[in-house]
Amino acid sequence: MGESRYIIGVDLGGTTINVGAVPVGGGTVLGMRSLPTDAHVGAKFVVDRIVTMIRDVKRDAGREGGFGADAFIGIGLGSPGPLDRETGTVIETPNLGWRNFPLRDLIVKATGLETEIDNDANAATLGEWWQGAGRGVDHLVGVTLGTGIGGGMMLDGKLYHGASDVAAEIGHMTIATAGRKCPCGNYGCLEAYASGPAIAARAVEGLEAGAASLIPDLVGGDLKAVTAETVSDAIVAGDEYAVGVMRETAIFLGTGIANLINILNPTMIVVSGGVTRAGRHLFDPLRSEVRKRAFRPAAEACRIVSSELGGMAGVIGAAAVYHVARLGGL
Amino acid sequence: MGESRYIIGVDLGGTTINVGAVPVGGGTVLGMRSLPTDAHVGAKFVVDRIVTMIRDVKRDAGREGGFGADAFIGIGLGSPGPLDRETGTVIETPNLGWRNFPLRDLIVKATGLETEIDNDANAATLGEWWQGAGRGVDHLVGVTLGTGIGGGMMLDGKLYHGASDVAAEIGHMTIATAGRKCPCGNYGCLEAYASGPAIAARAVEGLEAGAASLIPDLVGGDLKAVTAETVSDAIVAGDEYAVGVMRETAIFLGTGIANLINILNPTMIVVSGGVTRAGRHLFDPLRSEVRKRAFRPAAEACRIVSSELGGMAGVIGAAAVYHVARLGGL
Repeated sequence: MGESRYIIGVDLGGTTINVGAVPVGGGTVLGMRSLPTDAHVGAKFVVDRIVTMIRDVKRDAGREGGFGADAFIGIGLGSPGPLDRETGTVIETPNLGWRNFPLRDLIVKATGLETEIDNDANAATLGEWWQGAGRGVDHLVGVTLGTGIGGGMMLDGKLYHGASDVAAEIGHMTIATAGRKCPCGNYGCLEAYASGPAIAARAVEGLEAGAASLIPDLVGGDLKAVTAETVSDAIVAGDEYAVGVMRETAIFLGTGIANLINILNPTMIVVSGGVTRAGRHLFDPLRSEVRKRAFRPAAEACRIVSSELGGMAGVIGAAAVYHVARLGGL
Repeated sequence: MGESRYIIGVDLGGTTINVGAVPVGGGTVLGMRSLPTDAHVGAKFVVDRIVTMIRDVKRDAGREGGFGADAFIGIGLGSPGPLDRETGTVIETPNLGWRNFPLRDLIVKATGLETEIDNDANAATLGEWWQGAGRGVDHLVGVTLGTGIGGGMMLDGKLYHGASDVAAEIGHMTIATAGRKCPCGNYGCLEAYASGPAIAARAVEGLEAGAASLIPDLVGGDLKAVTAETVSDAIVAGDEYAVGVMRETAIFLGTGIANLINILNPTMIVVSGGVTRAGRHLFDPLRSEVRKRAFRPAAEACRIVSSELGGMAGVIGAAAVYHVARLGGL
């Protein structure tokens, strides 16, 4: 028979929306679908798209699992933040261009299902803790590498939100007081060194200075088209320059992660995002930098691992947000 | 009548031992006494001194308060760490030269009173939360400026210890990847910029380069004798150079505190230690740097204040450690 109750998990990102049906007791996600966010079209369009995807997931999951609409007990949604969980409002999100947007209530109204929202990085961390790399870990910090660098923290087995729901803004941790300019306006943020665009920018700087590399070939000579993924692709193709760019990235990330370890003494750090495809080219120098910079008893207590759920962490974690809020702990 | 049960609070520091009798319900500390640690004489000497001080505090407090020895229900002790709270063992403390030292059991054996130990910075933070600047605050981070920079965290109203009891090692947070050498062996730790010795070292560097200042007069021309206190004294005497040294200190500290705010989104940060005597010369530029570097909704949610209990935080907090472990929450 298996689980007969499902939560719809919605992972709303700046570029993609993922939706799936997650069994209450954990297990295979049904009806998964993924569409571009197309935020530029407008907020109403995005909400309508989410609602349509939820309807389609319910239909497909019901067909796959052989159950009816009453199996779906609610919706969990991870959104870029900051947001107010109490009122279900997205306070501000540059990626989507929203301000004080009543996302939760619009979803509830359109679907008739109770909905809980949380920050996307929090949701992904909760997902890894529930069904991924961090199962059963006491103190887990999630580090998500993408356009920005997001974070989430499970402390004593619970998501930690802080005083105003904006804890774990780890991308704007200063690692170099007089360092690189960050899009946020400050200097030396971790994000200015190790986000996707920052990795691409550092790679291009070296290429413009004449470094030998496969990267220009991979983008048809157009250096403006270089992304962090191009760097990863070049590593896979055996490019030494790209390996060096990733090593440098790992040193910056290792510095930021050593700070998290010194401050939080976590049991595990889960790193996710496309850049983790670089595998040992990322993790070996990262762990080595952490060993140099973190307090030894804290470094020894902490495993640094790659995400197990990958792109599914957001959907599974969003469903878990609903579970924790409405059904209690996982 | 008032409270009739007391906990002995012991604040064991690298240079000083403070002991006092703390009423279980909070209130005036009785029988306070303070002696040098004299750690160089040896571990047995230090333990004997603590035991003698406890005996004297019991006698004096009993006399002051008009009660007998049975009023004392236990001992709380804050020690430099890292330590193992479970076994009551100090794992390692460079300041005292101890390794795997069974401090708690030695105190229990000599006094006959149940004893609980915790890290000194944790104890001080708990003390400020119980009876000081942080009363009733949900999420409190304590930052103690001294020979090193220590930290403690009350999250959701509870001391957060992390996976191996070494959370809040904030002094070794990197704020400048390729920065000043720290005694720990790394480069760019907060402690390498803003600890007492680091403040003195930065002051002396400028003086050796010819800066005009009252500081040399305050130390009879012997720049080796300059300490962070000398810098504070010079500020009180109106010295502009010293004000500049403190402003620079505040910028480094503000960077580290902005990191704590971005990661933990606390309700309050309590700064303690002799350097806080510099008052607005420290706190004004510190708050201004935090506003520049911290995520706005997190900065707005956080008050940055000076310790209210000062040197008493350690004793009151040590008693609170016993209270939480044996009598439950405060």
